[in-house]
Amino acid sequence: MKRSDRLVAMTNHLIEHPSQLVSLPFFSAEFDSAKSSISEDLAIVNNILQQQGIGYLESISGAAGGVKYIPSYSRTNSEKFIDQLCEQLEDPDRLLPGGYLYMSDILGEPSKVRNIGRLFASYFSTSEVDVVVTVATKGIPLAYAVASFLNVPVVIVRRDPKVTEGSTVSINYVSGSSKKIQTMVLSKRSLQEGSRVCIIDDFMKAGGTVNGMKNLMEEFRAEVVAIGVLAEAEDEDEERVITDYTSLIQINNVDVKNKQIEVRRGNYFRRELN
Amino acid sequence: MKRSDRLVAMTNHLIEHPSQLVSLPFFSAEFDSAKSSISEDLAIVNNILQQQGIGYLESISGAAGGVKYIPSYSRTNSEKFIDQLCEQLEDPDRLLPGGYLYMSDILGEPSKVRNIGRLFASYFSTSEVDVVVTVATKGIPLAYAVASFLNVPVVIVRRDPKVTEGSTVSINYVSGSSKKIQTMVLSKRSLQEGSRVCIIDDFMKAGGTVNGMKNLMEEFRAEVVAIGVLAEAEDEDEERVITDYTSLIQINNVDVKNKQIEVRRGNYFRRELN
Repeated sequence: MKRSDRLVAMTNHLIEHPSQLVSLPFFSAEFDSAKSSISEDLAIVNNILQQQGIGYLESISGAAGGVKYIPSYSRTNSEKFIDQLCEQLEDPDRLLPGGYLYMSDILGEPSKVRNIGRLFASYFSTSEVDVVVTVATKGIPLAYAVASFLNVPVVIVRRDPKVTEGSTVSINYVSGSSKKIQTMVLSKRSLQEGSRVCIIDDFMKAGGTVNGMKNLMEEFRAEVVAIGVLAEAEDEDEERVITDYTSLIQINNVDVKNKQIEVRRGNYFRRELN
Repeated sequence: MKRSDRLVAMTNHLIEHPSQLVSLPFFSAEFDSAKSSISEDLAIVNNILQQQGIGYLESISGAAGGVKYIPSYSRTNSEKFIDQLCEQLEDPDRLLPGGYLYMSDILGEPSKVRNIGRLFASYFSTSEVDVVVTVATKGIPLAYAVASFLNVPVVIVRRDPKVTEGSTVSINYVSGSSKKIQTMVLSKRSLQEGSRVCIIDDFMKAGGTVNGMKNLMEEFRAEVVAIGVLAEAEDEDEERVITDYTSLIQINNVDVKNKQIEVRRGNYFRRELN
């Protein structure tokens, strides 16, 4: 195969298999080319991925070595994307009773969801996540977006048991906003003991739901190593029970009466980004 | 920019923007290269995408012209993928009470979900779909996968209204399998009148749920132009109310007592594929 053809095929393969080790012999056989040519190709791909601010190739040496495409998002790309999102969310028509924000339309755009996933995945890329866990319903697309970049499976916690899940483990928790006792269930066979878990959700106020998920993870002897929420908002009545989370967006000063809100960058941008 | 660099950047851009028109002047400016060079690059990309059986570039001529990456999946790729899935599903340990199959682990793998999305998107690529609609919970990841390849938004029908949705439209329907009257709700502002809808779900027996979604779409004066279900199974007690659907997998002869099932290719493979 010619270099120009190889570059297209290789770029496609790497982008479709993020965070997955690809051996040089695989490419060599697939494209019927010498390993030295493949190495040169990979240098070109790596260089352009970095230039475009969307990731880089990690080289793993040794007999079981190869390359891995690690997705990332440059600071400039991330800030631009989140600032646009903030602006879109500041529309007063989005205000709902109880100080909630209508976000379903934004969460319904696959390209935006994919970008959100890319941001979280690039942030959590060194946390050695085994599985992404979310609770039905709104967090699901975000969880898949994160998981697809991290190359790990998704496990969905439900609020009601369903016949198609088999036997389940359930816990009760107090929802921060409604103060009601709620239930969460997870199929027994869905999570292995000792898994390193990344919790993803769309919205967090006091953090009761995320805390419930943390407790449920304990039942499975799983370790929560990362928590990502798209948007966080203050809860007037209650202090936050979760502190070690990463948010992309912060909703402040919700004034339902005067139809005003303030949407800012979340704590994601307050730490050092690589 | 050199051709080798351009090919990497261009392949990446096209794959990250499926079913989206990209103008030649955009590439020309982005890569600081003559339109004639860009055209040659695109011919190389198109050729390799087709060789790999994952799609092709559609050229749109005229002033507002450009290229679109149309994802597809070759017959060989599709059959191999679905046959593997069938084999995995035939494991008798997956059998649940009521003749259901445990599929959550498979639906939890982002790469499999993405492939399923690619299959449906390639099948429905000429149906001019405006929006993909699904019902919570299991169909959600599939719906996003399809929608991302078709470059359209996703709308999620819920089984219970939620405060974060705003005002809603609801309908009652009879679930085929349980014969119970159930409710479906959809936020009023989530769907435009006249939208061309593709319904996606994970599992269909008699088709009561899909039929409920069809009825709900009528309330929004939306037109259902495509229906895709991952797996279909026979319902012993009831005739199917939906006939114009596309399934990837067919579950037959579920024998809970003797722990046996038969999983075969769905009707997707019975029609002509391009």
